[in-house]
Amino acid sequence: MRLRHKPWAKEKIENYPQYVIPNPEQYRGNWNALFGNNQPVHVEVGTGKGRFVTGMAKANPGINYIGIELQESVIVAALDRLIDAELPNVKLLNTNGEDLQKFFAKGDVGRIYLNFSDPWPKNRHEKRRLTHESFLRIYEDILIDQGEIHFKTDNRGLFEYSLVSFTQYDLALKYISLDLHNSDFEGNIMTEYEEKFSSKGHPIYRCEVKYE
Amino acid sequence: MRLRHKPWAKEKIENYPQYVIPNPEQYRGNWNALFGNNQPVHVEVGTGKGRFVTGMAKANPGINYIGIELQESVIVAALDRLIDAELPNVKLLNTNGEDLQKFFAKGDVGRIYLNFSDPWPKNRHEKRRLTHESFLRIYEDILIDQGEIHFKTDNRGLFEYSLVSFTQYDLALKYISLDLHNSDFEGNIMTEYEEKFSSKGHPIYRCEVKYE
Repeated sequence: MRLRHKPWAKEKIENYPQYVIPNPEQYRGNWNALFGNNQPVHVEVGTGKGRFVTGMAKANPGINYIGIELQESVIVAALDRLIDAELPNVKLLNTNGEDLQKFFAKGDVGRIYLNFSDPWPKNRHEKRRLTHESFLRIYEDILIDQGEIHFKTDNRGLFEYSLVSFTQYDLALKYISLDLHNSDFEGNIMTEYEEKFSSKGHPIYRCEVKYE
Repeated sequence: MRLRHKPWAKEKIENYPQYVIPNPEQYRGNWNALFGNNQPVHVEVGTGKGRFVTGMAKANPGINYIGIELQESVIVAALDRLIDAELPNVKLLNTNGEDLQKFFAKGDVGRIYLNFSDPWPKNRHEKRRLTHESFLRIYEDILIDQGEIHFKTDNRGLFEYSLVSFTQYDLALKYISLDLHNSDFEGNIMTEYEEKFSSKGHPIYRCEVKYE
């Protein structure tokens, strides 16, 4: 998405350490301490403006959600949602997917969500795709045994690439829809981008894969 | 497809034993003897009117093709193509996919093609789908090591089902396209059904999977 420079974003983020966790490495292996309960922790990598993660948190109060977003000018919109909603089971991290192992120990995370990740369509950028083998290894390092990745995108090339990448990594395909909004899948929470895109009638692809 | 009763079909098939092999069990483990060479044998299960298998045979003279079709009233159209084309590297079998092991020994077949197979959409008919686990076991019993299945369909439900079935059987996904006619895949030979269907603008799904 086009990013607007927001010089005040950094300061605002620092003013809400209860929502955007300033030193997440201190909770590595101990996220229960932050949330104050033993609920499973699900992480969205690339949480954008936070519509998905806050929607999921409202719908599933028995799960703790952590939204990760690198862009300060974007994560502030997710922060605004949290300030409004006062959800006890959502936190945000202003960092990127490559650093996940610094903040999460093996087993800290029950599920990874990837929603409309940057497709990086050029071959030379393959390693930046969040479903590249190197990321699948990072996710494995922080997920519980039999942890899952739930992935949706409108980008056909990225979805095709990801299916091959998942199965080459020996992840088990649990569920797949090649047209999510015309499927029998229930409880879909749309991202901002998804709502805008799907209204044009293009299909949304979605799958669930599991480490074994 | 709607089947028209053709009482003369059986007789015509019997009149061309050089094209529709009458006793295929005699070549089990020895298809080279029939073709008179050592070329790989690729089998299309559900060959319909034979456009795909004859088109492939013309494009790939170094491969032997066997088209399998149960319906006499349909296979006669494929027979007509063979009579016209006089291709030395295509044979037809008037039988069904469940009997493959009677006609092929382990390693007789280099590749299986499944094109626009009957989707059998009702759950209670799941076992009839040509990508059901029971069929994947039959294919494994006749394929070479690292043999492949190349599958295409316009039916979203069947494709979704098949991807899960393939990966649960631990087949490796080598290639996938979620819109074949708008992809960079080269050398696609269309079936009769494919041409008719794709002209309506619906996507054709295609994948290649490999036994490991």
